[in-house]
Order: sequence, then structure tokens, then C-alpha cells
Amino acid sequence: MQLDKFIPALSWLTGYRKSDLKGDVSAGLTVGVMLIPQGMAYAMIAGMPPIYGLYASTVPLILYALLGTSRQLAVGPVAMVSLLTAAGVGAIAGVGTEQYIALVILLALLVGVLQLLLGVFRLGFMVNFLSHPVISGFTSAAAIVIGLSQLKHLLGISLPRGERLHEILAGAWQHVGETNLLTLSIGIGAIVLIQLVKHWRKSFPGSLLAVVGGILLVWGLGLHEHGVKIVGKVPGGLPALGLPSFEWATLQSLLPIAAAIALVSFMESIAVAKAMQSRHRNYKLDANQELIALGAANIGAAFFKGFPITGGFSRTAVNDQAGARTGLAAIISAVLVVVTLLFLTPLFEFLPNAILAAVIMVAVYGLIDHKEAKHLWRSNRSDFSLWVVTFLATLFIGIEQGIGLGVLLSLALVIYRTTKPHVAVLGRVPDSFFYRNVERFSNLEQRPDVLIVRFDAQLYFANVNYFRDSIDELAAQKGDALKVLIINAESINTLDSSGVHALEELIEQYRQRGISAFFVSVKGPVRDAMAKAHLTDKIGGQYFFMSNQQAVDAFDNIRQGNDFTPYILQTNK
Amino acid sequence: MQLDKFIPALSWLTGYRKSDLKGDVSAGLTVGVMLIPQGMAYAMIAGMPPIYGLYASTVPLILYALLGTSRQLAVGPVAMVSLLTAAGVGAIAGVGTEQYIALVILLALLVGVLQLLLGVFRLGFMVNFLSHPVISGFTSAAAIVIGLSQLKHLLGISLPRGERLHEILAGAWQHVGETNLLTLSIGIGAIVLIQLVKHWRKSFPGSLLAVVGGILLVWGLGLHEHGVKIVGKVPGGLPALGLPSFEWATLQSLLPIAAAIALVSFMESIAVAKAMQSRHRNYKLDANQELIALGAANIGAAFFKGFPITGGFSRTAVNDQAGARTGLAAIISAVLVVVTLLFLTPLFEFLPNAILAAVIMVAVYGLIDHKEAKHLWRSNRSDFSLWVVTFLATLFIGIEQGIGLGVLLSLALVIYRTTKPHVAVLGRVPDSFFYRNVERFSNLEQRPDVLIVRFDAQLYFANVNYFRDSIDELAAQKGDALKVLIINAESINTLDSSGVHALEELIEQYRQRGISAFFVSVKGPVRDAMAKAHLTDKIGGQYFFMSNQQAVDAFDNIRQGNDFTPYILQTNK
Repeated sequence: MQLDKFIPALSWLTGYRKSDLKGDVSAGLTVGVMLIPQGMAYAMIAGMPPIYGLYASTVPLILYALLGTSRQLAVGPVAMVSLLTAAGVGAIAGVGTEQYIALVILLALLVGVLQLLLGVFRLGFMVNFLSHPVISGFTSAAAIVIGLSQLKHLLGISLPRGERLHEILAGAWQHVGETNLLTLSIGIGAIVLIQLVKHWRKSFPGSLLAVVGGILLVWGLGLHEHGVKIVGKVPGGLPALGLPSFEWATLQSLLPIAAAIALVSFMESIAVAKAMQSRHRNYKLDANQELIALGAANIGAAFFKGFPITGGFSRTAVNDQAGARTGLAAIISAVLVVVTLLFLTPLFEFLPNAILAAVIMVAVYGLIDHKEAKHLWRSNRSDFSLWVVTFLATLFIGIEQGIGLGVLLSLALVIYRTTKPHVAVLGRVPDSFFYRNVERFSNLEQRPDVLIVRFDAQLYFANVNYFRDSIDELAAQKGDALKVLIINAESINTLDSSGVHALEELIEQYRQRGISAFFVSVKGPVRDAMAKAHLTDKIGGQYFFMSNQQAVDAFDNIRQGNDFTPYILQTNK
Repeated sequence: MQLDKFIPALSWLTGYRKSDLKGDVSAGLTVGVMLIPQGMAYAMIAGMPPIYGLYASTVPLILYALLGTSRQLAVGPVAMVSLLTAAGVGAIAGVGTEQYIALVILLALLVGVLQLLLGVFRLGFMVNFLSHPVISGFTSAAAIVIGLSQLKHLLGISLPRGERLHEILAGAWQHVGETNLLTLSIGIGAIVLIQLVKHWRKSFPGSLLAVVGGILLVWGLGLHEHGVKIVGKVPGGLPALGLPSFEWATLQSLLPIAAAIALVSFMESIAVAKAMQSRHRNYKLDANQELIALGAANIGAAFFKGFPITGGFSRTAVNDQAGARTGLAAIISAVLVVVTLLFLTPLFEFLPNAILAAVIMVAVYGLIDHKEAKHLWRSNRSDFSLWVVTFLATLFIGIEQGIGLGVLLSLALVIYRTTKPHVAVLGRVPDSFFYRNVERFSNLEQRPDVLIVRFDAQLYFANVNYFRDSIDELAAQKGDALKVLIINAESINTLDSSGVHALEELIEQYRQRGISAFFVSVKGPVRDAMAKAHLTDKIGGQYFFMSNQQAVDAFDNIRQGNDFTPYILQTNK
């Protein structure tokens, strides 16, 4: 029972049904066939030799299958994480050098350890701070950067490193004259082929077809002797188990990028996993266990010469469509990659880089989310601005900076909005006990001696001054006729010590001016805060009401010298 | 009319009443007499020669009197800002060197420009982010640091620079053996004298008495020849007008500390100004004009060899008690300091440093706010933690770091709280139309087929998952009997695009399971967000209700096949 919690795979392994096998095998083989070209292509994005993409597609898949709670999620190399890897490590070491490769492997270890720690300390909720507009703006810009980063392979030219749009474009503009037309034709041909196959039959692995076609073409016609760049000799065999070596200084310099990858990759992975879970509903997802599983998978990658991986959109969708029922499908994919590593690597020698570039460009094109931008423009301007800022910052300032800025800005907006919240004066809907915002509804009844104010935010340090100013201004509009201030607290969700202090001062000063202060619909947590600070006693328990009408009626009773029976409920706590 | 806005002094200057003169003169002289010892003492905290404290007490006062909106606020050198100055500049240059003095003057310019810009761009609201527990914890710790920083003058010993409690105490412990007992006696005598005078008559300037006594004692008995350190020869005359010189690199290194001083000093000043305004109410305070006035005063300080200044607690209180009615009082104080600079500086030669240290220690002792800490411990543990963290960080990590950490932590807590807000299931109060939290009140009525949920926070990207999970869990508890989910949205104050998306998905999935979704008390801004994203149409306008009871009744009508007339109000917008 307990073991189930640590190794969720036991829940499907122990009761494995024969009926699931067909789907698992078919899905596992399909995803495996996709994984081989994609893995090599994404290794190229990460600035690694293509073979490392296959290394990253073995042990990590099996570790996730054992420890993860999703049964359809296909982990492995993905474009976004590979790009972040290149952006982060490329700033420290030259792409393709031995030091670069060692740092990327170390990065995988760091990402894994961070994810493991986040999971163990149950900090999975942090991913919630990535808002939808930020994710969408970031993904769209990252897709453009990833796509354009492959321009050099598509054109067959050399370009200086650069992850910013203007740098990439300026570099390409300078060297476009050196384009190898043969390479370009192969690349464009592959793009057209993959797109056509996709239209014809979605589940057919068009990229594998392009890979096979490209190899045959180059090998048959000897195109590599005419300037078409190829993958070249690929070492065969499985990756050797090895401890990533490191120094504290490099570890420190990798930490920021590792943190960004840990969160972004978890975010991508959990989003896909949730979508799958909601289609099946025969198992439960646990965000923190997911972090632990991804952490273990990345640590596994580091020990077997892999680079940072995560659960990706496209292969997971294919896995699900092809019938994956359990984690066995992922294990079968991994076995297929192992077989490839053992016996098929010589085949990849003649694979042109342009084909891998085509695979990448087709894959990332779908990630440019202009629909969401359009939708936000129409429905929510402030979220639209967030999208645009994140998009532009990712394109022109940098990959990590883009997402960092987006997150900070979205949190700052949340805070800013609560500093000047919506404040409503309530009036009575004729012939009813309902009170609504007088600026929103016509014909509401207001009395000169009664001011009912609703403050639409938690009352806390950053808005106590605004609260006070708003009420003073509204009271001033009423003039001397005002006799009772009714604070409708139904939307004050929390109250901190500054809020308590502000209320205390307000009530005191209004009482001195002969104006009573009543409270309506005060929430439990706010009642608690008031009671603890002895504010309830100062206001008087009898001045708390269940509804606006009750408060108005009680005020009339008091004015006429009548008693009124406060409607006090018995509370549990 | 327009000129009034830029030079608020015109509003009292043009209609100056003779009846105000007596109070203004009396207050101006009293504060001036306080200002002379305090100015010199606070210059010492800032690491400047005492005479600079008098320089900072001339032109800035007059500029504030002309441009400020408060009529009682007494600006000039204050302890906290002087300490921040020493902490910031001391890290760049050796205290007492010419470079140090030049940097402090430049800092005043930078603080002034920042405040001016904040005021012009109407960013005065930023001060709201300093919550009460953070201010109180910071002030208390800063008071302790300021007081202990004077230990060397009180003991007559030399100590290495240090603004952290453990550094100061370790230094003092090492050198305590070198204490000059004569100096110590003078200092303790002054403390006792000031305290006694305060008990006897609060408005009497005890510190001036101590200064005069100290000068006479040292001069008469020649104590400076027995190791009592004195202020020494003081250059007479007014400060020369001079342009602060600077390089861009030093400007950059001073920027963080200037930003901290600009905000902290504005916060201190506006808090006192508000307290005064609420006592008088015959003028209006304008936070942004206050920033402009303080900015001008600091720029003025920089041009006349002053250091950063602001409106302070103690002298403002004295100014008010002594009868200040307009800014004329401040101008009279400044004139008194000018007269002192012109004719009385030779008197200060024999003033012992220990007397100034005593003045400071008495002044800051009152700022240690243990009462607030006790109050928060009882009424609000989370605000208490903020107080403690800010207090300890200011003591042991550093002055600026302390307040910075406090602000960040308080904002992080605000955000964190909204990610896992209070969620209530509502039940009916028997024999009424009121619905309340079933966990808080006893005997509420619940129906197996109806789930009424109230989510107590704005619905936005960081809590959509929690929202979804909470509702799913509550719905699961109801089981198959559940037929309608009523979302009481009275405390959902705003809705972003992630919130819209979450609601859309929720409604869709519950409908598929045969469960209707109704909405109650949706606020105007949230209604707008729903309408713009076409969510209102998808839900159906007839499923929005004014009260829980309406929603329940409508549901019963639908179940029984009856029509129900939705109660739709005519809205203005």
C-alpha cells in the first residue's frame, strides 16, 4: 500500500490487464519511431551532437514510467527545454566544445535535483504563477526563436551564436549569400513532405519518412560531397553510466537557468498530463509526485549522458491517440531507442542536418499562438499586454528574461489592481431586499442619511489609504444629512493589521462626527481578525448584520428610539 | 489660481491672518532651538561634521514651506535618514574623508531628483507598499542600531565602522576597556538631564539645556584636555552655493541607497503630515505635491552643502504643540539657524560629542516599538512574523536589506494567501433566505442535490487550479445526488483570462456529467470580463441570480418542468 505512493507504477503493474497490451505496444512503437528523429533534432537545438538526443530518450523514459502518475505522458527531449539549455549554457561555454557537453549534462542533474526538491517539499503550486498569457506569449516567441535558430541548417551556412531575434536575423542577412541551394532544396522538400503526410494521415510519422528519404538521397547521390552537411559518424552502443563532474563555481552559474528549466519544463509537462488525465479519469495526477518523477528522470538523464528533458505536447498526444493505457508504452518506446542505439546508428551517418531542421520547424510552427493573442485583445486588454510584453521580451531581450519579466509583471499587476480596487455605493432595487451598485443599475433607491459602501478587495496595507480616501469622498458627497455608514464587507476576503487599524480609526472619527458605522456580511476569516484585535468589541457586536436591509431597518429602529433585536447566529467556531 | 497648485504656500501667504502670527513665531523659535542640537547630532549619525547638520537646516526648510502642502510639518535632518546615509555612503568611501562628504551631498541631490520624479509622475502610491508591521519592525531595529552607533561617542572610544548589531557589539566589547570615564559621566549626565526635563515640562528644550551645560562644563573646567572629545573649531558663515560634482559610475552606485532613502523618508514624512492634517482639517494634503516639495528640499540641501532630510516625528509634534498655523513657522526656524551660523558657531567649539550622543540616544529610544510587536503577537501572527523578520534582518543583515526584505516578504504573503483562499460551502439559515458557511454556523440546511460554493478571492491565474480542485472535491463528497452547482461569486472581485478559461472548462465538464452550473451575485467588473469573453452567452444569461435562494428556487422550477422568470435588472452599462 505504502509502496504504491512512492512507485505509482505498481498500481498498474500489479493489475496489468491483457486488454491493455495491444494499445500499449502500438503506442510505444509509434512514439519510439517519432522519438528517434525528434530526439536528434532537439539535441541539435540544445547545441549537442544528435546522438545525445537518443541517449536522453532511454533511461529517463523508464524512470518516469515507474515514478510518474500520468499513464499517457511521453517524456523526452522537447524543443523549448532544449532552447533554454542552449541559451543558458551557450553563455558560459562555446557550443560543441567538450566543456559545453559536460555543462549540459551537469545542467540536467541540477534541473533534476531542483525538481526533486520542489516535489519533496510540496512546492508544486509554484507553477501556478505562470499565467496563461505569459505561457502563451513565451511559447510563441520561443517557437519563433527555435524555428529561426535552424535557419543555418536549412540554408547550409554558418552563423554566430545568438538567441535574440534581431541577432539571428542580422546574422542570416549577412550570410544569406553563402546559401547551399542543394541543402535548402532538401530542407524545403522535407517540410513539404511532412506537411503533406500530416494532411493525409495524422498518425503517420512523416518526420521518420523524411529522415529515411533524406538518408537514401544523400547516400545514393553522394550529395555530402556537394556541400550538404550531414550528421556524420555516430558512435554506436549505449551511453556509459558516468558521474557528472562539477565545480561549485560552475554549479552556481548554472543555477538560474536550471531553476527556469525546472519550472518551465514542469509547467509544460503538467499541462499535458492534466489534459490527458481529464480524458481518461481512471487514475489520479499528483503534481508533487510528478515533480519527483521528472526530477528522477532528469537525474537519470545526467547519469547516462542525456540533457534536460520533460513531458512534451506532440508525442504525448500521439501516444494517447495510438492507444497508450499504461506506462508500459513509454518503456516500449525506450526499448526501441535502445535497439536503435545498439544496431542502427551507422544508418544515421548520411542524415542531412537540413532534414532535422525541417522536422524542428514543422514541429514548432504550431506553437505560435496568434489565436490566443487575438482572443485576449478582444476579451482582456490587460492580459493582452502581458502576452505582448512577454512575447517581445522573449524575442528581443532573451529567453529566460522574457519569461521572468512576464511572471514578475503579472504578479505586479495583481498587486497593483488590489491597491485601487472597485468601490461600489449600493442602492435598493425597488420593492425588494436586494442592494446593488447604483452606477450599474438604473432606478435604485438611495436615502440621504444612509451610505452603503462595498469595497471589492481584501483590506490590507497597500490599499488602506485608498479605502479611507474613497469612503471620505463618498461621505463628503452626502454632506451633513449622512447619519449611518454601512460597510458591506461581503467582498473583503481578508483583513490584516493595517486594515484593522484603518477600520478602527475610521469608526472612531465617524462616531465623533455623529455618524454610526454598521457592518454587513462580514466573512468568517475577517470576523476572526476583528475579534482577535478586539475591534468587534469596539464596534459593538450588535452592529454586525446579515444583510443590507437588516442594517437599514436596525438603524431606523434606533433612530425612532425602538429596541432592535440583533439577529445573531450561533457559530461553531 | 493655477499658481496655487505649484506653490501651495500662496494659499496661506495671500490671506495671512494676524491671529496666526503669535503661534507661528512661538513654534518657529521653539523648533529652531531644538533643531540646532538635533541637526548637529544627526549630522554625526550621517558621518558628517556637525556643522553640516546646520547647513541642512536652512534652505530646505524654506523650500518645503513654499512647496509643501502640510502647514505643521517640520523638515530637516532626522535620525533614520541619517543612518541610511551613513550605511549607504560608508560602504563606498571612508567616513569623514572629503570624498565621503562630497558623496553625501551628491546623495541628497539624487534623493531629491528621485522624489521630484516620483511626485511629477504621480507615483506617491508606492509608499503604500510599506506595511505597518514592516515600518514598525524596521524603525525599532534602526533605532537600536542608531542608538548603539553612538556608543563610541558616549564612551569616548574609537570603533571600526559597522551598522550591524553583532559588529557594533563585538567592536564595543573589544574596546570597552579604553572608556574615558569623564566622557561617559558627561553623556550619562546629559541623558538623565534630558529625561528629567521631559518629565517636568514636555515642551522645554532639554537637549538645548544639555548642550549649553556641556559647553560651559568643558570650557570652564578644561575637560577637553582630559580626553573629553569635543566638536572643535567650527567654520562660521552660511554654506556656499555649489554644484555637487559627480561621475556616472558613482551616481550608479548611489542609486539603490538613494531609492531606499527617497521612499523611507517620504513614508516617514507623509505619516506625520497626515496625523497633523487630521487634527486641523483646514487644508488638504496632496501626496504627490509632498513628494515634489521634499524633492525640492533635498535638491536645495545638495546645493547648500546639506545631506538628505525629511519631515520628522518629534520636531513636527513640537511645532504643532507650540502653535504653528502656517509654513511661516518653518521659515522662522530656518532664520534662527541662519543667525546661529552667522554669529554663534564659535560657541560650539567646546561642545562634547558625548552630549550629542546623549541627545540622539534619548530621541531614538522612543522609536523602539515593542508595544506593536506585542499587539501583533496577540492579534495577527502572520503580521507578527513580518515584524520579527524585518526587525532581525535590519539588525543583523543590514539597514536597506532589512526594509527591502520586509517589503518583498509582505507582498509575497499577499500573493501566497490568494493562491489558497478560503472556500465556503453555504447552507440555509432555517426559516430565512440567508445562506452562510456551514462550517461556521450550526443547524444550517443543506440539500443533497444542491452544492453552493463561495470562493473568497479574485479568480486568477495563480488560484484557478485550487478553485477547480476545491470544487471537484466538494462535488465528489456530494456524489451522484448532485444536480446543480451554484457558484456564489460575491467575493470574486476580479476575473482574468485564466479564470474565464477555468470557469468555461468547469461548466462544460459538469454539464457533461448532468450537473447544471448557476451563478449568484456576480460583481460588475466580473460580469464585464465574462461578457467580453462570451462566457455569459455560454452559461446562459438566465442562470445568473441575485441571491442563493433565487437560484435554488429557479432550479426547483426547472426540475418540475415549470417556467421560471429570471429576475434581470436593467443595467446602465
